[in-house]
Amino acid sequence: MASIGACGLSGVNRQAFSDEDVQARKLLVKWASELGLRIFSDAIGNLFLRYEPKGSTGAPVLSGSHMDSQPCGGRFDGTYGVLAALEAVTALHASGAQLRRPVDVVCWSNEEGSRFAPGAMGSMVFTGTRSLEEFLDIRDRAGIYLRDALGQTLDAIPQAQRCPIGFSAYAYVEVHIEQGAVLEQAGKRIGVVTGIQGCRWFEVEVTGEARHAGTTPMRARKDALQSAVRMILALREHFADAQDHVRFTVGRFDTLPNSPNTVPEHVRFTIDLRHPEDAELARLAGSICSIAQTAGAPCGVTVRATFVCDPVQFRKRITQHVADAAGALGLEALHMPSGAFHDAMFLAAHCPTGMIFVPSARGISHHPDEYTASADLAAGARVLAEVLQKLATE
Amino acid sequence: MASIGACGLSGVNRQAFSDEDVQARKLLVKWASELGLRIFSDAIGNLFLRYEPKGSTGAPVLSGSHMDSQPCGGRFDGTYGVLAALEAVTALHASGAQLRRPVDVVCWSNEEGSRFAPGAMGSMVFTGTRSLEEFLDIRDRAGIYLRDALGQTLDAIPQAQRCPIGFSAYAYVEVHIEQGAVLEQAGKRIGVVTGIQGCRWFEVEVTGEARHAGTTPMRARKDALQSAVRMILALREHFADAQDHVRFTVGRFDTLPNSPNTVPEHVRFTIDLRHPEDAELARLAGSICSIAQTAGAPCGVTVRATFVCDPVQFRKRITQHVADAAGALGLEALHMPSGAFHDAMFLAAHCPTGMIFVPSARGISHHPDEYTASADLAAGARVLAEVLQKLATE
Repeated sequence: MASIGACGLSGVNRQAFSDEDVQARKLLVKWASELGLRIFSDAIGNLFLRYEPKGSTGAPVLSGSHMDSQPCGGRFDGTYGVLAALEAVTALHASGAQLRRPVDVVCWSNEEGSRFAPGAMGSMVFTGTRSLEEFLDIRDRAGIYLRDALGQTLDAIPQAQRCPIGFSAYAYVEVHIEQGAVLEQAGKRIGVVTGIQGCRWFEVEVTGEARHAGTTPMRARKDALQSAVRMILALREHFADAQDHVRFTVGRFDTLPNSPNTVPEHVRFTIDLRHPEDAELARLAGSICSIAQTAGAPCGVTVRATFVCDPVQFRKRITQHVADAAGALGLEALHMPSGAFHDAMFLAAHCPTGMIFVPSARGISHHPDEYTASADLAAGARVLAEVLQKLATE
Repeated sequence: MASIGACGLSGVNRQAFSDEDVQARKLLVKWASELGLRIFSDAIGNLFLRYEPKGSTGAPVLSGSHMDSQPCGGRFDGTYGVLAALEAVTALHASGAQLRRPVDVVCWSNEEGSRFAPGAMGSMVFTGTRSLEEFLDIRDRAGIYLRDALGQTLDAIPQAQRCPIGFSAYAYVEVHIEQGAVLEQAGKRIGVVTGIQGCRWFEVEVTGEARHAGTTPMRARKDALQSAVRMILALREHFADAQDHVRFTVGRFDTLPNSPNTVPEHVRFTIDLRHPEDAELARLAGSICSIAQTAGAPCGVTVRATFVCDPVQFRKRITQHVADAAGALGLEALHMPSGAFHDAMFLAAHCPTGMIFVPSARGISHHPDEYTASADLAAGARVLAEVLQKLATE
């Protein structure tokens, strides 16, 4: 699969609804057909490959992830979850296990959002979080409408039967690379994902006075950069927690006029604040404005919330299945929240949902250097197969 | 004069060797001719307007500044110094004072350096700090050679007699707006400029690791921005002095990849450090590297010196003349170093040199809002006239 859109030494460039995405879908459908799976697609292009052995009936157990990538991302992000689900279904099929309900391998459309923003379109539309119509007129940088790119993607898989958006599911389980280094550093092979941390974004604007760097004494300055520096350090200290659960990132920082011998007049920077617990995230976010304004004096400071995403807790029942399966297979596991967003974030509002993590070497992701050892990939797929069998038979 | 190249409400755009610069020179030469001054120009286009009454002989006293401006600068920066010198000479002429030596009003070429970098070309070439040949092949953004623009400027003033580069001068006195708010805040009308502070520039590069803002715990990060923030604050604290003499500016700050949800991998920022005393400036500059590297850990830090300009002390004799003249005129004066560079910085190595400052409203300069009240401009010109008479007769 990684040869489709190969990029760099081992990365992939397979953006949503591109020719590469279409080729990847065709290969997946070919493999699914060889297994005798039934192939469905909904109007946003989510692909469902249904394993429906005799005696199985009703709402399916869903498992998968996405196969689109960042412009030059890794080969594991998302794709691993789809192929691990296909492997698990292959194993279920080979074992001849009796199932009470079908199992769908699912490939969600446009999780990355790097060609057509926002990401997680497929899972958002499936779960009714957003409507398909909201997205059809979005254009990529070349001016191509999502409507047209999606239409070509759907047309390329004529064997897929059209299914309605958002059918009932018994459960959803997604296996994914961690995209962080927590498992690697803890020396554990399986992450029992307890939920997805919440995230709040802010944009902070600091307004001082542009002055000559040579002629203006320090005490007479309103230096927007020095104020921003004090604010960031005060926030960093305020957010420090013994458990290292808070994630605080100033990723974008722009200075005006950005000239070596002029005292900066304006600084604008972003805050990305994350925490797995709703109340704690709200408490931390609520403290930003006063800390920033106190530390930022004598400059003017405005803080604007630009994005809110509440934490998601996965269902205990699913988490327990994952922990049990890891235990039964003799794999060391760690309970942990997910630091990144995933399609599972939206599925959690639709049906009982859980996730399984495998280690990412050095935590690198969205980069061709993204790497997970084969033994870890296999371990994750085995845990998934156990969990799917459990869910499909209980 | 400010109508030539008028820009904004009260600014000017009169860049070196432009049509506007030529028009300004022509107007100055017209006024000088009306006074009967002799007009000279050297090969870099410095204009000398000589007042040479009967009985005066030998090396002249020089006084002036520059008439080129920033792309949309103020009307006072530089031009005031040239016109104040012309006013002073007009007054000397009107008074019929006996002088022992000539007085030259001088207009230095290209002090700002905004069209052809570097600045202070006229005074650097005059004093032998740099040679004319080094500058002739410099091009502006439109691709025009300095050689050609300078040639057109010289040709436009055919009445100017060509004089050699770097003739002997008895003394040089430059009056200039302060470009800072020290006089305004002290409530003084005259700055007795003791020298020009030294300046050192550095470029600091911080290298961390780009990581996912959601998945990477704080303790596992090498966040180049957080390291830069700690470094800047540590330097700011280290440089704090009770007298408020140190000037420390981080004016440029660039972040990579500059994305809200990615831990910054690279930060590059500039340091502009100034102090009036040579030894102290060297001591402060010498401490930057170790402070930056300690505060910047665990990121990699490199510090590169990009510019050095040693402090200049003006001659006590000239400073005393300025203070005496202010006192005789009943004007409150403040001894102070210049925060900005001026042509006087280079003249100081050529002949006894001094400067006189008048207040800049709110310290604003290099901006159309640059402003000095007429009474302050007149006060500076009166002090200059006294000092020139003293120097030309002593």
